[in-house]
Amino acid sequence: MAERPRLKGAWTARVITLFPEAFPGILGLSLTGKALDQGLWALDAIDLRPFGEGKHKNVDDTPAGGGAGMVLRADVVGRALEQAAIGTPSDRDRWPVVYLSPRGRPFTQAMAERFSRADGLTLICGRFEGLDERVLEEYEVEEVSLGDFVLSGGEIAAQALIDATVRLIPRVLGNQASTEEESFSEGLLEHPQYTRPAVWKGREIPDILLSGHHAKIATWRRAMAERLTKERRPDLWRAYRGCHDGDPDGDREL
Amino acid sequence: MAERPRLKGAWTARVITLFPEAFPGILGLSLTGKALDQGLWALDAIDLRPFGEGKHKNVDDTPAGGGAGMVLRADVVGRALEQAAIGTPSDRDRWPVVYLSPRGRPFTQAMAERFSRADGLTLICGRFEGLDERVLEEYEVEEVSLGDFVLSGGEIAAQALIDATVRLIPRVLGNQASTEEESFSEGLLEHPQYTRPAVWKGREIPDILLSGHHAKIATWRRAMAERLTKERRPDLWRAYRGCHDGDPDGDREL
Repeated sequence: MAERPRLKGAWTARVITLFPEAFPGILGLSLTGKALDQGLWALDAIDLRPFGEGKHKNVDDTPAGGGAGMVLRADVVGRALEQAAIGTPSDRDRWPVVYLSPRGRPFTQAMAERFSRADGLTLICGRFEGLDERVLEEYEVEEVSLGDFVLSGGEIAAQALIDATVRLIPRVLGNQASTEEESFSEGLLEHPQYTRPAVWKGREIPDILLSGHHAKIATWRRAMAERLTKERRPDLWRAYRGCHDGDPDGDREL
Repeated sequence: MAERPRLKGAWTARVITLFPEAFPGILGLSLTGKALDQGLWALDAIDLRPFGEGKHKNVDDTPAGGGAGMVLRADVVGRALEQAAIGTPSDRDRWPVVYLSPRGRPFTQAMAERFSRADGLTLICGRFEGLDERVLEEYEVEEVSLGDFVLSGGEIAAQALIDATVRLIPRVLGNQASTEEESFSEGLLEHPQYTRPAVWKGREIPDILLSGHHAKIATWRRAMAERLTKERRPDLWRAYRGCHDGDPDGDREL
């Protein structure tokens, strides 16, 4: 990874991984990449391999109690975490240490906002069958899951977490700041979008959107967002109704 | 992207993106990368830009009805989809067409299994404020969400979806096939793992795991998996109890 300028105090992600060459990857493109080049945030990929044991720098071993797969060793990952901790605050609110695993609490926009308010964070990318539980206890590691699916390793999950977080850092999005988060943070899925051409393959943009009636457009969009949320995400819909009407099981006609 | 061998009938991901250089990215490393090199699966990144309008190859325009951000044009994305469809079955069960967006249904391991049984799939990576709704209707596009957070674009989500899917294709994982999925597909979070050393920073591996009693170890692991699921994921816990005891609200002591 080429050395980049780094603004003093810039939000920093330290990523412990067996594949440091995977970083910054996609994060080096587009707006996150531009902001990285400008030093608005920083990324340190820390290769786990040199912290391994013995001549072959082994990082894993068989699970105690038997079973398939290999488990990342506590001592090896511990040494990498101690290296990553140099120069960072020990307060986990200011510098969370995160292990990406399907066992964790689900990553959400609210979590991205919390991470973006920290000075930075350290991410452990898992591989194989898991990580020795004692590391998680010893270093107060927060387990975070990208979702209910199994990935080959934590690297893609780390990039997703970093991307969602970095775009909330001031100046990263520049003038492209979108309203998508606003819609999302209200707890609704976004309404349908349309743009030119007005007619395409016989399909027209809904008249209301071309009417110029801002209030009617806003009402239509809200109704569409509510309908979509209700259809696709009953869980979000219940939470939204609970917040807005105090009646999470209500079934108002849209 | 270098040309790779491709086994006849190999599962193929076609990815429509403004950042084709982001692929294969992490997917080119580790076991998914080895399997890609062996032709066990294939990846075609399709640059959206050449399908754009006019001299500047514009791919987006302002949202009908007003609002921040830009919307990907139906005609532009439609042309890219028609290119991507060449040589693929029109049956969406055999070849799903997926748009990655926070509006979609959540990506799950069951969805990865379904995708892995298809011949391949086409993925549309969004950018900006969204995609003209008419494309989704015209091409029977399935909207899939990686989770309740906002990413700069669909590329990282596409890599996560592909990774989770490809590792389910026969021979991709080789001898590294893990039990993690088994635990997960049972609907429980995985139990804690330990490996050597037996004592680290004063922390010991639980005695039971060193006992050699396979039945007791299995019971302990199941109890730990259940406790963890109950604590961290009440939603999964309720579903699991519903499947196993017909009593989703029961609160058996662990």
